[in-house]
Amino acid sequence: MRPSQRRTDQLRSVEFLRGFTKHAEGSVLVAFGDTRVVCTVSVAEGVPSFLKGQGKGWVTAEYGMLPGATHTRSRREVTLGKPSGRSQEIQRLIGRCLRAVVDMEVLGERTLHVDCDVLQADGGTRTASITGAYIALEDAVSKLLERGILDQSPILQPVAAVSVGIWQGVPVLDLDYEEDSTCDTDMNVVMTADGYFVELQGTAEGVPFRRNEVDALLDLASKGCRELIGLQMQALETGLVAG
Amino acid sequence: MRPSQRRTDQLRSVEFLRGFTKHAEGSVLVAFGDTRVVCTVSVAEGVPSFLKGQGKGWVTAEYGMLPGATHTRSRREVTLGKPSGRSQEIQRLIGRCLRAVVDMEVLGERTLHVDCDVLQADGGTRTASITGAYIALEDAVSKLLERGILDQSPILQPVAAVSVGIWQGVPVLDLDYEEDSTCDTDMNVVMTADGYFVELQGTAEGVPFRRNEVDALLDLASKGCRELIGLQMQALETGLVAG
Amino acid sequence: MRPSQRRTDQLRSVEFLRGFTKHAEGSVLVAFGDTRVVCTVSVAEGVPSFLKGQGKGWVTAEYGMLPGATHTRSRREVTLGKPSGRSQEIQRLIGRCLRAVVDMEVLGERTLHVDCDVLQADGGTRTASITGAYIALEDAVSKLLERGILDQSPILQPVAAVSVGIWQGVPVLDLDYEEDSTCDTDMNVVMTADGYFVELQGTAEGVPFRRNEVDALLDLASKGCRELIGLQMQALETGLVAG
Amino acid sequence: MRPSQRRTDQLRSVEFLRGFTKHAEGSVLVAFGDTRVVCTVSVAEGVPSFLKGQGKGWVTAEYGMLPGATHTRSRREVTLGKPSGRSQEIQRLIGRCLRAVVDMEVLGERTLHVDCDVLQADGGTRTASITGAYIALEDAVSKLLERGILDQSPILQPVAAVSVGIWQGVPVLDLDYEEDSTCDTDMNVVMTADGYFVELQGTAEGVPFRRNEVDALLDLASKGCRELIGLQMQALETGLVAG
Amino acid sequence: MRPSQRRTDQLRSVEFLRGFTKHAEGSVLVAFGDTRVVCTVSVAEGVPSFLKGQGKGWVTAEYGMLPGATHTRSRREVTLGKPSGRSQEIQRLIGRCLRAVVDMEVLGERTLHVDCDVLQADGGTRTASITGAYIALEDAVSKLLERGILDQSPILQPVAAVSVGIWQGVPVLDLDYEEDSTCDTDMNVVMTADGYFVELQGTAEGVPFRRNEVDALLDLASKGCRELIGLQMQALETGLVAG
Amino acid sequence: MRPSQRRTDQLRSVEFLRGFTKHAEGSVLVAFGDTRVVCTVSVAEGVPSFLKGQGKGWVTAEYGMLPGATHTRSRREVTLGKPSGRSQEIQRLIGRCLRAVVDMEVLGERTLHVDCDVLQADGGTRTASITGAYIALEDAVSKLLERGILDQSPILQPVAAVSVGIWQGVPVLDLDYEEDSTCDTDMNVVMTADGYFVELQGTAEGVPFRRNEVDALLDLASKGCRELIGLQMQALETGLVAG
Repeated sequence: MRPSQRRTDQLRSVEFLRGFTKHAEGSVLVAFGDTRVVCTVSVAEGVPSFLKGQGKGWVTAEYGMLPGATHTRSRREVTLGKPSGRSQEIQRLIGRCLRAVVDMEVLGERTLHVDCDVLQADGGTRTASITGAYIALEDAVSKLLERGILDQSPILQPVAAVSVGIWQGVPVLDLDYEEDSTCDTDMNVVMTADGYFVELQGTAEGVPFRRNEVDALLDLASKGCRELIGLQMQALETGLVAG
Repeated sequence: MRPSQRRTDQLRSVEFLRGFTKHAEGSVLVAFGDTRVVCTVSVAEGVPSFLKGQGKGWVTAEYGMLPGATHTRSRREVTLGKPSGRSQEIQRLIGRCLRAVVDMEVLGERTLHVDCDVLQADGGTRTASITGAYIALEDAVSKLLERGILDQSPILQPVAAVSVGIWQGVPVLDLDYEEDSTCDTDMNVVMTADGYFVELQGTAEGVPFRRNEVDALLDLASKGCRELIGLQMQALETGLVAG
Repeated sequence: MRPSQRRTDQLRSVEFLRGFTKHAEGSVLVAFGDTRVVCTVSVAEGVPSFLKGQGKGWVTAEYGMLPGATHTRSRREVTLGKPSGRSQEIQRLIGRCLRAVVDMEVLGERTLHVDCDVLQADGGTRTASITGAYIALEDAVSKLLERGILDQSPILQPVAAVSVGIWQGVPVLDLDYEEDSTCDTDMNVVMTADGYFVELQGTAEGVPFRRNEVDALLDLASKGCRELIGLQMQALETGLVAG
Repeated sequence: MRPSQRRTDQLRSVEFLRGFTKHAEGSVLVAFGDTRVVCTVSVAEGVPSFLKGQGKGWVTAEYGMLPGATHTRSRREVTLGKPSGRSQEIQRLIGRCLRAVVDMEVLGERTLHVDCDVLQADGGTRTASITGAYIALEDAVSKLLERGILDQSPILQPVAAVSVGIWQGVPVLDLDYEEDSTCDTDMNVVMTADGYFVELQGTAEGVPFRRNEVDALLDLASKGCRELIGLQMQALETGLVAG
Repeated sequence: MRPSQRRTDQLRSVEFLRGFTKHAEGSVLVAFGDTRVVCTVSVAEGVPSFLKGQGKGWVTAEYGMLPGATHTRSRREVTLGKPSGRSQEIQRLIGRCLRAVVDMEVLGERTLHVDCDVLQADGGTRTASITGAYIALEDAVSKLLERGILDQSPILQPVAAVSVGIWQGVPVLDLDYEEDSTCDTDMNVVMTADGYFVELQGTAEGVPFRRNEVDALLDLASKGCRELIGLQMQALETGLVAG
Repeated sequence: MRPSQRRTDQLRSVEFLRGFTKHAEGSVLVAFGDTRVVCTVSVAEGVPSFLKGQGKGWVTAEYGMLPGATHTRSRREVTLGKPSGRSQEIQRLIGRCLRAVVDMEVLGERTLHVDCDVLQADGGTRTASITGAYIALEDAVSKLLERGILDQSPILQPVAAVSVGIWQGVPVLDLDYEEDSTCDTDMNVVMTADGYFVELQGTAEGVPFRRNEVDALLDLASKGCRELIGLQMQALETGLVAG
């Protein structure tokens, strides 16, 4: 039995609270169990200089963690003067994954700023961020359609992310902090609704892993992403939804 | 009639949601109308070097704002490499105000890290931060008493803060963003439960203000702080409380 | 008797040395007792981008302290990579106070850079800075009038600042370093020649303070600012003036 | 035919020049085709503070690129004040991969600093870095054994890395810059001599990729890593070796 | 005739005002014509870590310029986040020159912090800084002797600095700003009282210079340094001295 | 006999390897004995803003050192957040020296970025950088002439640099690290092919130096620069050349 008492292929309880704050065009509080992330999407006219004049838009992401979000208080990154390597790596990942499902020509010369800020961390903050940010992206696009700024959605299809790992030799889905700290291999998988991969990042935390373990982890992750995308669809139809 | 339709001496709806997150010893979501701030208090053994070996504790505060919290997305401070002057000014204020109601010798050589992070800004983020942080401080101290780390509370008395201003010639209490943007004078007042002042910061945004206006503003602020302290007491007795 | 041997309502000896340096349009060495600050005002065509094209000017201030200015050498801020919170707070205050007495439309699209650099610190560096910077502002504007760049002064009226505090229960005017270190309440007050308030910043250093103490401090500060404005007038008429 | 005229499963010409510089304990110039990286390993007594007193060692990596190494000169990172997100991501990856093949208890309380600096970039700088750094690590450990500082090698087994990608629908091995810029999926794979995975990082540059493409890429990468490890073995036996 | 109307071998009017500020152990306002620099020397017990436990002292220097000191206001270095290359070069020079005339073993494990801050710049700020700092060093050492902290002066001999240059083909001494901006070669020379060189830095601003020009410049600089050391001696005997 | 066993007036073995890397327009690996520096020159259209619209070009230099290049690994400057004072001083020197032999009007509104990165340090890295960068500059200009971007070379004449010093009372040429660490005076001299001086930087490391020592050092340096310029000429005619 894994530490969280879940089945090996069972997601944590997942919730999306849309409209969490009122200023950003999209704002979602996403929960993967005790992991809570605020995902906002803010729209700005214009694009970074390397894109100017091409008629294309841009999606960029930033990731942060409140100091009190972790078991032991972490230092505020601004007092250190720069984002940590970990934060930068995560925000680059979030940006790439969302760009993979946005048609930049349909978006036109505007920028979608995605901000993912962790209120409470219990493992899987990057996968919760991507999964929640997709909902915030849909909500922001809806605002642009309502306001007549766009007449067609630039979003190609849903995207979701989940972690998988090998815990005491057993492949398990959606690791919480305790499981993540004690597992041997950790893989983050990002998939689209049509079942294709956007990102695959596997790391041997302890011992290196075998090809058949890769296969088992990818199966598990595919199942998890499929379920998450189902929950995203429900959330977009009905507002606040518990998975 | 002031823009917010409130009486000139009426606070916004105030709420404290205790236990908002689970890792920090104290964690409160405070709402002053649409202004929402997460206040956490994390306890660490030890004190900054300038205090070492004196048997005294320390309380320090940091303040931040999520990029999506404001009407127009604000840049993430860490990407600018340093906290803005405004953020530093506010966090210095929060720290001073809380230190004013803590007996450092009773606290002993440990540090209370107060983090105030604005999820949604609609005026008065610094006063909401101070008022909410006091509750988080009480909750953190309760944990220390329960765990036997302290045998007496170092908190001397409640402290609360409110803004007052002169809006079109009329002194009004607890300005929201729209009122704050259009008022002539803005004053932040921090008071203790025994009715004394901890801080007083008045600024002429447009035209300088007269002595009798100072008097009217201080009266209004005293009333506001008294009410806020009443709401704090209720929150501490009953958990989540709407004012 | 207060430590400085002055009467409770007595200012320190105040001096303004105009034309202290030759490149900046205005340059004043101000002394409040042993506190010495160089205040320069440099004129630049153009305004920050948020103001462009509105026909309005801008006044901005920066504050610094020479490392050797304090009792114990302080670290040079540039080697720390950023201004301290204290410096930022003070320079924001100086900027606000001077903007309160300048008509930005009369100034037109140009920027007045105010630099206040403390050569020797003995308490009250921010109040000396504001009081001296006003003289430098007048001198810089005179140059612009002489050169025909302005045909009317944008300065509305004089502004001066003084600190007051409660020392061993007694309200006293214009604290020096020794008094400031041992007083319970410290208030900085900025007033215009017509007797109105521009800023009011009171802090309970030790014990919180009562309303009647606020009243006494404001009376004292009003008297002090009135006298300082008298000395400013003399300095502008006669050059170097000792108060 | 792929742009580089190589077979789809053909590595670029690979060379290791050991003893490239004289001060660091290990120093290797590695070439993957036109990609050239200097990998040095410097030994220091002591470990970072989070490891002190546990009898364990540490391996840490830094990655940089000479400004003139790229097609268009890139800005020197130090003049930007911090390593780019890309550099940090790569150096974190290099460090993790090398730690995966080092027994920290055998190493003892000392730190191996790995520096990978790109002299000339033509795709695959991170995989060349890992593959070359392993040789430099062996050479540094040999010095420590010779000097009697270690009496047993802490290196568990060889590690190598290679990129694979889908270029116009075809899985290809070891992408050069031109191929990398035009391929749809890019995957970096790090493997040990026993054929296990240490890292797996796949990214959909253009269109998301399917499960059967993952399989084909992993087959190709396994073949590539196996060959690279063969070349590493030759290099360690014979000095400078062309693959 | 050179622009400043001085003879080619004539120094500007030189003044030293000792005791310019009261907190630092040594404090001198030095004037080379219109160039004005505050030089303070502050004593601290202890030395940097690389010197600990060797019984030797250290002399270190920092150099800055008030924003209003130059013809056109220069940006405050702290707002740029780091000292400019020019400032660092100058402060490294000042430190080296003073260390050349101090016996670190006689000084013992304490640090002399030299701060040179330019109030008004008109060419030759680095040479004025070195020449004035020597006086401040003597004054600081006198304090240490008076207080019984030292029983012997660690200062070996006086040191002074002057600039020389080739202005329209003619070697001239002690360039002011206007001369410096238009001369072809600029050399800064630092010499001791016994006529030896401590530093020599010559730069071809426009056209390269010949060996016989080097000879003429060194002759001129020797004369200038000799005179400056004479003025230093007078200043130390008599207080404020005009050269 | 000096430590390196060379005659007092003997250069180390000097080599230039042209075309060391392929992307930059000029790329030279220069060796002064065991000191190895990569010098690249990259051409960019446009000039810094202070030069825009004047029809003139610019030459700017940056200098760095690989962490593993020194006897003991040095910290990577980017992790310290800024170039050290030493690096800035050296890169300012390199830039000045190369600008002294380039006609900016012939170059036109383009910038030559010179990057000197030390792969292995054994004394004299700045003199090797200047001497090697001149070759890279020639190679970059040849490319611009071939491409028809320039129709005339803007390079006025060769420039080379060498260090000289007084080792145990004897003037010696081209100090290696061991000699540099133990010598009393260190002078870097930069000269043109016509035998004029571009820069002269002499420092008393231990005891100050006399005028006749300056003369001896300048003689030695002139001989060294003349020989280096001879070797540069050979390298430009014949490709890789050992001196």
